[in-house]
Amino acid sequence: MALTGRRKLLNEVIFGTETRAGRNFDVFLIWAILISVGLVLLTSIGTVRDRYEHLLIGLEWVFTGLFTIEYIARIYCTVNRRKYIFSFYGIVDLLAILPSYLALLYTGATYLLVIRLLRVLRIFRILKLVRYLRDANVLLRALGLARRKILVFYSSVLVMCIIFGSLMFVVEGPGHGFTSIPTSVYWAIVTITTVGYGDISPQTPLGQGIAAMTMLIGYSIIAVPTGILTAELAGEMHRERVQQRCDNCSRSAHDPDAEYCKFCGHRLEDMDESEAL
Amino acid sequence: MALTGRRKLLNEVIFGTETRAGRNFDVFLIWAILISVGLVLLTSIGTVRDRYEHLLIGLEWVFTGLFTIEYIARIYCTVNRRKYIFSFYGIVDLLAILPSYLALLYTGATYLLVIRLLRVLRIFRILKLVRYLRDANVLLRALGLARRKILVFYSSVLVMCIIFGSLMFVVEGPGHGFTSIPTSVYWAIVTITTVGYGDISPQTPLGQGIAAMTMLIGYSIIAVPTGILTAELAGEMHRERVQQRCDNCSRSAHDPDAEYCKFCGHRLEDMDESEAL
Amino acid sequence: MALTGRRKLLNEVIFGTETRAGRNFDVFLIWAILISVGLVLLTSIGTVRDRYEHLLIGLEWVFTGLFTIEYIARIYCTVNRRKYIFSFYGIVDLLAILPSYLALLYTGATYLLVIRLLRVLRIFRILKLVRYLRDANVLLRALGLARRKILVFYSSVLVMCIIFGSLMFVVEGPGHGFTSIPTSVYWAIVTITTVGYGDISPQTPLGQGIAAMTMLIGYSIIAVPTGILTAELAGEMHRERVQQRCDNCSRSAHDPDAEYCKFCGHRLEDMDESEAL
Amino acid sequence: MALTGRRKLLNEVIFGTETRAGRNFDVFLIWAILISVGLVLLTSIGTVRDRYEHLLIGLEWVFTGLFTIEYIARIYCTVNRRKYIFSFYGIVDLLAILPSYLALLYTGATYLLVIRLLRVLRIFRILKLVRYLRDANVLLRALGLARRKILVFYSSVLVMCIIFGSLMFVVEGPGHGFTSIPTSVYWAIVTITTVGYGDISPQTPLGQGIAAMTMLIGYSIIAVPTGILTAELAGEMHRERVQQRCDNCSRSAHDPDAEYCKFCGHRLEDMDESEAL
Repeated sequence: MALTGRRKLLNEVIFGTETRAGRNFDVFLIWAILISVGLVLLTSIGTVRDRYEHLLIGLEWVFTGLFTIEYIARIYCTVNRRKYIFSFYGIVDLLAILPSYLALLYTGATYLLVIRLLRVLRIFRILKLVRYLRDANVLLRALGLARRKILVFYSSVLVMCIIFGSLMFVVEGPGHGFTSIPTSVYWAIVTITTVGYGDISPQTPLGQGIAAMTMLIGYSIIAVPTGILTAELAGEMHRERVQQRCDNCSRSAHDPDAEYCKFCGHRLEDMDESEAL
Repeated sequence: MALTGRRKLLNEVIFGTETRAGRNFDVFLIWAILISVGLVLLTSIGTVRDRYEHLLIGLEWVFTGLFTIEYIARIYCTVNRRKYIFSFYGIVDLLAILPSYLALLYTGATYLLVIRLLRVLRIFRILKLVRYLRDANVLLRALGLARRKILVFYSSVLVMCIIFGSLMFVVEGPGHGFTSIPTSVYWAIVTITTVGYGDISPQTPLGQGIAAMTMLIGYSIIAVPTGILTAELAGEMHRERVQQRCDNCSRSAHDPDAEYCKFCGHRLEDMDESEAL
Repeated sequence: MALTGRRKLLNEVIFGTETRAGRNFDVFLIWAILISVGLVLLTSIGTVRDRYEHLLIGLEWVFTGLFTIEYIARIYCTVNRRKYIFSFYGIVDLLAILPSYLALLYTGATYLLVIRLLRVLRIFRILKLVRYLRDANVLLRALGLARRKILVFYSSVLVMCIIFGSLMFVVEGPGHGFTSIPTSVYWAIVTITTVGYGDISPQTPLGQGIAAMTMLIGYSIIAVPTGILTAELAGEMHRERVQQRCDNCSRSAHDPDAEYCKFCGHRLEDMDESEAL
Repeated sequence: MALTGRRKLLNEVIFGTETRAGRNFDVFLIWAILISVGLVLLTSIGTVRDRYEHLLIGLEWVFTGLFTIEYIARIYCTVNRRKYIFSFYGIVDLLAILPSYLALLYTGATYLLVIRLLRVLRIFRILKLVRYLRDANVLLRALGLARRKILVFYSSVLVMCIIFGSLMFVVEGPGHGFTSIPTSVYWAIVTITTVGYGDISPQTPLGQGIAAMTMLIGYSIIAVPTGILTAELAGEMHRERVQQRCDNCSRSAHDPDAEYCKFCGHRLEDMDESEAL
């Protein structure tokens, strides 16, 4: 079913990026999302919330209203409504407005705690931004190709963390902060990823020896995902370059930084721009 | 000697992955291993252990029984028993059940400490999981090719840690936490791997200068194993791609993400799947 | 407009690197910049400042005088004065002397604080050094090619930090150091970059679980910019090698470490040296 | 001048690796070095030193005697004595025995402190080990090719650390641990290398913002040396492979993991083994 009249116009503005109005709408939406996320961050600071409480609540409702209207308009003007509502972005769009309304219903004793949790959920609004970012395609395709090797890598890291964590639980024990195996596994993850908070750290010589081994392993296996991704990415970038065709003479295999066709001198369109969204 | 009758059937179910029963057995075993490891983790949490002591001990014995029956069945139905028992997985299979039985014999004064150590050994059960993970072959072959270069790298890192640790022991001394050279070497490993607990940290200007140098060296030499592995992995992935042959026309050199033969359109079998285990 | 007489001579000494006088001037300038920055560092140490106050202030004015004369001479002998003054290095040259003079005007109650800030701005002098460093071109071109992919990467990291920070603010709350969402986002950045100060660290099991997830994500996504840059750099270095031509026989495609042309034995000029500045 | 008689024999044993005696001598020396370094580490632990003082001092003199005899023998049997004494290993060999003798002369009030420093210098003995490690050549050549690019990178990192350190000194000030610009630069290095001790950490919102920026920069520029080295290493490994020749048919370009010549089936000698020292 093709759209007609007002719905078609609205669809071009809201979903499209070809018309001037469509692009302006997108830019306006990005700013609205960024500002509303900024408001959530400000509201979480105690001194700011106490001082500007009414202003923050007011602005909060303005943005909730705006995004509600936008959500209804998206449902109205889309071709396949069911598909949009249950798509990833349809759910994110709903999650971006729902928490504000839910905060109205539950206003009991645990009000403050609940509203906080709900407000934070609104941060998912920012996920909308991902939709507007370009050049992510090459990265995602390389990650897709590398996914199984990376899964094997992650499983190995987790197995190592559980084994080293258990060892440290026995060697150091609850007296030195290793209160249970899950806590020790948390310590092992903190150590193997080289984060190293220092909230839990070994104190016996044997514990320090095992910790040193954990670090050296963590330090070197970081090379594995880098190696996998680099190899996949190099292949993916090579493929992308080969696929770029000159609009004039249809020949391909241009250098990645070429701005003009090397066969006929025609200006090459930026592939990343033209294929985006 | 070929297996016959019941032993052959059992062998197909336990060791094989071609039949439906064999695959179901493997999936069931993975879940049993994961759950039993989860139990060990839960048991280590003081509050959980106090509350559900009988349940946890009971479940512990259920899993020990299951894995014991499995171990005996493996010995019964394998072709070369001696080879299985002394293989890596044969030993891991035994280590996964032994601690529970040993805990019965030694129940003296140091009962609690010993049982803890024995229970942790049971975590080796999870090592069994490695057997079921696929796609690890390419990684392992690249690591194999890179092993000597990585050994040279590790030796250099250890030599540097001993020298920097000794220097810091002299410069900072026991008063600032550097109580002995081994402790200082532990500090150097914590620093060079960029873990940085902060349990021991330099306090004199000279010590901070040496520490800064250690960090900058550690920060840059991480490039070395990454470089080695990436170079080997790229070569290994190239070789793997070249070796993949179409079942229909026997031609090779397909792209790594190709799902159909580019010469005859026949669906390519996923090499990683078909060559696993 | 071509320069003549004294201005041309001065231009060759100050801006040029071909004559012996020009090279000597550059070396002298680098040492003057390094020493004056060293003085700023020394002055910031309380005990040193109290002891050598007059000497440090005196030397400070010697260097300010020197750089002022140099700045005036640069304006005097350059071809296009407006272009130089508003160029990047023109502004850096001005910023390198301005703070010392501004410190004379504002000597009120907040004297100490202001002079401190102004003095620090003088550190921009060191940025001048970048001008003299060679071999940075290949790196910068590779970074230029990778800039959009790296921007996408950074945006994703920031979005993740905001979401994980908000989650931790709700889970851990102000009682455990997560006083506001911005503070929690700061914690998320400290964690995802594997810095891990430990000034804020999760204390509830759920918080430690989310923190472990944040670390594992941060630990693996570090592979992304490395992969991007390595792929671009390999291409850029390949291109550089292909472009290098022998002065004698005009043939190219020499190996990156070749010092003599492989076709005619003529000594190859070092490209990085000859194209620098 | 060619060596004759006893000197030639001794030279083959001490410097050579072709004869059985030469290899045995090397293995014996490695163990002697490792054990004597282990002794220095043990001696630094207070409780061990108090208990086994006489044994440790005795063993110390046994090893000093052994290495002294070895040093004299090396001078005796080498062809060009002056060249050996002033070579890197000649100096390391001397430094490995000198501290023990110097400890005899200076036995005044500061005895303990001095002997400690001298003893630590003996750790340089371990540097001898480097001589025996193989496969380091490819790594060193790739590092050599990358040295100028890595120097540019290090200079940029140091400039950034000085600028960020100065900024933090002004923003946070001595009250929050940033007592001087050098200390702040130390903090910047701790942060940019993602070590993150947490001994100094920002406490104002502005300081935390600048710190977050420092971390993100440090987190991403680690990609630069990795990219440089990987690109150089890939080239160097390619070159090494191409250079490997079959002893039988003299053809080259074998795969890096090839053990037999692909043209004539002759077993390829391991290049890394045959070209080492």
